[in-house]
Amino acid sequence: MAASALLKSRVRRPSYLNKLAKAEDLIDFFPHGSYIGWSGFTGVGYPKKVPTALADHVEKNKLDGKLKYTLFVGASSGAETENRWARLNMIERRSPHQVGKEIAKGINNGQIKFFDKHLSMFPSDLVYGWYTLDKPKNRLDVAVIEASAITEDGGIIPGASVGASPELVQMADKVIIEVNTASPSFEGLHDIVMSDLPPARKPYLIMAPEDRIGTPHIPVDPEKVVAIVESDYPDQTQPNAPEDEGSQAIATNLIEFLKHEVNHGRLPKNLLPIQSGIGNIANAVVGGLSKGGADFTNLKVWTEVLQDSFLDLFDSGNLDFATATSIRFSPDGFKRFYDNWERYAGKLLLRSQQVSNSPEIIRRLGCIGMNTPVEVDIYAHANSTCVMGSRMLNGLGGSADFLRSSKYSIMHTPSTRPSKTDPTGVSCIVPFCTHIDQTEHDLDVIVTEQGLADVRGLSPRERARVIINKCSHPDYKPILTDYLDRAEFECLKKGMGHEPHLLFQAFKMHQNLQENGTMKINSW
Amino acid sequence: MAASALLKSRVRRPSYLNKLAKAEDLIDFFPHGSYIGWSGFTGVGYPKKVPTALADHVEKNKLDGKLKYTLFVGASSGAETENRWARLNMIERRSPHQVGKEIAKGINNGQIKFFDKHLSMFPSDLVYGWYTLDKPKNRLDVAVIEASAITEDGGIIPGASVGASPELVQMADKVIIEVNTASPSFEGLHDIVMSDLPPARKPYLIMAPEDRIGTPHIPVDPEKVVAIVESDYPDQTQPNAPEDEGSQAIATNLIEFLKHEVNHGRLPKNLLPIQSGIGNIANAVVGGLSKGGADFTNLKVWTEVLQDSFLDLFDSGNLDFATATSIRFSPDGFKRFYDNWERYAGKLLLRSQQVSNSPEIIRRLGCIGMNTPVEVDIYAHANSTCVMGSRMLNGLGGSADFLRSSKYSIMHTPSTRPSKTDPTGVSCIVPFCTHIDQTEHDLDVIVTEQGLADVRGLSPRERARVIINKCSHPDYKPILTDYLDRAEFECLKKGMGHEPHLLFQAFKMHQNLQENGTMKINSW
Repeated sequence: MAASALLKSRVRRPSYLNKLAKAEDLIDFFPHGSYIGWSGFTGVGYPKKVPTALADHVEKNKLDGKLKYTLFVGASSGAETENRWARLNMIERRSPHQVGKEIAKGINNGQIKFFDKHLSMFPSDLVYGWYTLDKPKNRLDVAVIEASAITEDGGIIPGASVGASPELVQMADKVIIEVNTASPSFEGLHDIVMSDLPPARKPYLIMAPEDRIGTPHIPVDPEKVVAIVESDYPDQTQPNAPEDEGSQAIATNLIEFLKHEVNHGRLPKNLLPIQSGIGNIANAVVGGLSKGGADFTNLKVWTEVLQDSFLDLFDSGNLDFATATSIRFSPDGFKRFYDNWERYAGKLLLRSQQVSNSPEIIRRLGCIGMNTPVEVDIYAHANSTCVMGSRMLNGLGGSADFLRSSKYSIMHTPSTRPSKTDPTGVSCIVPFCTHIDQTEHDLDVIVTEQGLADVRGLSPRERARVIINKCSHPDYKPILTDYLDRAEFECLKKGMGHEPHLLFQAFKMHQNLQENGTMKINSW
Repeated sequence: MAASALLKSRVRRPSYLNKLAKAEDLIDFFPHGSYIGWSGFTGVGYPKKVPTALADHVEKNKLDGKLKYTLFVGASSGAETENRWARLNMIERRSPHQVGKEIAKGINNGQIKFFDKHLSMFPSDLVYGWYTLDKPKNRLDVAVIEASAITEDGGIIPGASVGASPELVQMADKVIIEVNTASPSFEGLHDIVMSDLPPARKPYLIMAPEDRIGTPHIPVDPEKVVAIVESDYPDQTQPNAPEDEGSQAIATNLIEFLKHEVNHGRLPKNLLPIQSGIGNIANAVVGGLSKGGADFTNLKVWTEVLQDSFLDLFDSGNLDFATATSIRFSPDGFKRFYDNWERYAGKLLLRSQQVSNSPEIIRRLGCIGMNTPVEVDIYAHANSTCVMGSRMLNGLGGSADFLRSSKYSIMHTPSTRPSKTDPTGVSCIVPFCTHIDQTEHDLDVIVTEQGLADVRGLSPRERARVIINKCSHPDYKPILTDYLDRAEFECLKKGMGHEPHLLFQAFKMHQNLQENGTMKINSW
């Protein structure tokens, strides 16, 4: 196969060009039951050609359920790849995080064996061999990695995400590289370290978000590279969810709190490195910092994923540096980023998820960690993953990496969400979370559009009063207060009142939601 | 006051001897409402004279409830101090960990505001000012620290524990030092680093249990030292719980597993640094390693607290080095330790709890973390603290520090415990934990006397089958299997079967225990 001039300009290792192949000719590398790794994180930097060719092959030959794979991706891939794989019943097992209607369906109807995991820990456990216990030497069969360029040494320069690619490459017997020529080369934007195993593991010598400790590419053993594929279409991202009144109110409460902490000398004037999740609340918070003018200057960001609002924060002049494992901009955001490359590139660094989400570094830097849960309970446990305790949304992600280790561990949520029949039918503040991903030992602050509960140093009973009073919706405040009053009365009486619960009624609001479409109950 | 020759031999800073005082003359340093820090960890190295003098003062003058304090100790203090304070209603607020009947009573009847916290994080949050939000500059009023000697610079050489003493000293306006002359000087046995605040925090440059990165003493600003008290009685420890048949069976299962991992190349022959908790199961495991002969040699230990069984492990010749924040030996163990000081001292290092429990270091070293829970659920969440969701035992301790970050995260527990009326009335494997301190994302292995469940890389439904089949008691296996079968049926049908639960019956076994004295139910 002859390489295009564009491809040649990206692939500086001549021997790789001899391995140039079409995706549809690589099917034989993927026998049924293979253990596969893909690059990608939050829907950017994922391989597009090979997964699509495999899906086409299954579809054309009616092989649904006959070619099934164990699939590992740093976080979520693109909808046109893993969702299609899910629909074609090609996924036997999947970890550690996913986004998409079809794959969620497969997980929750029992077709796909999914387990979620701390995103910092997933690559580490992979290298330990935890996920390949039955494979020879605990290795993966093949990794398919998207590159934006290839170095002289044959190293991979990723695109808009790094994710778990370094470890997937490290653990795979064979590597297929998709060189994406539809997007610019991201060369110079990455800092990559590979994983040593204990007892040889070393500290991450990072003291600030801008510190570099690795190489600008993922080192690869060139003999493992079995094929190079040219990929000619960009990441398929979606526009961002707009801010609404509620998310702006949450952001206002939160920014007020940060100012309070600065005024009391517990935070420097330029704060500490900010971690912010995805979604409209996160957008509103970052937007609020952009509009903060002289209040917040010289900010730095240490986070998992950057969304469009960070471009505004750069443009406001308030943001000095940002680092993450992925930049997941909207199509408009990517255009803005590429058009102004010079303005942003020097202030941006992409790392592997093992580093971006490293508890070691997050604790050292003293990050301000902010995430949105499914629900929070009155004692400050939080559910990040499973609706009604059972239905998986996307997975744990990096929420617990950041909330356990940040200096400020903050959960922001609307106080209610609509049910099918009641605009405030679901309270996000509940007596007992139906699934617990973050414990009471990990949260400092809960904030809703109603207000902010600062629970640092409080006993559980104090915490519950503050959370109910500051954060819950007026429709639920009397219901939750009644629960707490009764639980205190019953448990203190029995000398078991440290964290009072009416254990056997704790999910009554959830039961009412299931049976009557709202969490509003008349009595306990 | 004239100093004894013994005291002079321990206090090398002459100016401190001018501050020599009797404990009973220091009452005025402790007005009602003071924020106080004590040294101590797992009942060793705690101050004895000043707390006792304060208790005597309250008792004599009938001041119960009129002199109340916020009390911070790294972990538990001695029974004759904090238990007595609890009985005399002298504790307004307490964190992060405690052991003792009276203090547990005060916590569970609502008298004492207690909150537990990751032991690695407690000192860090203290330095952030999280627990002193209402105090000027977020400072503590006074720290009472036991020393085994004082350096020329006025630095404190702790005794058998370090705990949170460095940070308590750092945050206190005034420091009172109790120099214990009844036990030997522990000089040379400690490695102390103080806490920098972000953004100035540095990596812990520890790559092996024996690495030293600090000073052999706690640096103190001598002007903060308001008094020196001679203390003349040793730590009051208890004999250890004996191994029983059940704990030996658990240890056998666990050691078999470690051998299996060595054989498959996932662990080096000398394992990786071992963390082991307190209690008879931990004793049996460490005992098993002692008796392992040539199977396990050149072991190293990175743990929170060392108990007597580690002396056996040293004596077996299999243990090269051990480090912890506390050595909590029995009275016989301490005698053995002191009598053979030369044999042990060079192989032992005590660090602050912020370092011994540091997730950064635990993950880097790839520790083998082992802990005992109250209960584990079928999806591998664990309860480490609250019986029936409400009654506090001792606190979280370091369990989550180790289980989150270790290479191997292991929970060991008997499959059942006796209730008042049924020798196997309480199953330690339950459908849904009544309180969750460790999440499903944090556990690799569950082991009981019945068997061992290796849940690495398994989806929740697979995990549940393995845990029930390998770990649950035969009396409960059918009950738990029935729960899982029904939950799967109900939840998969509704397309919410990732982690199937019968949410509104999940605590039925606990309810039956409360009402009928056993968790054995006839049907769901």
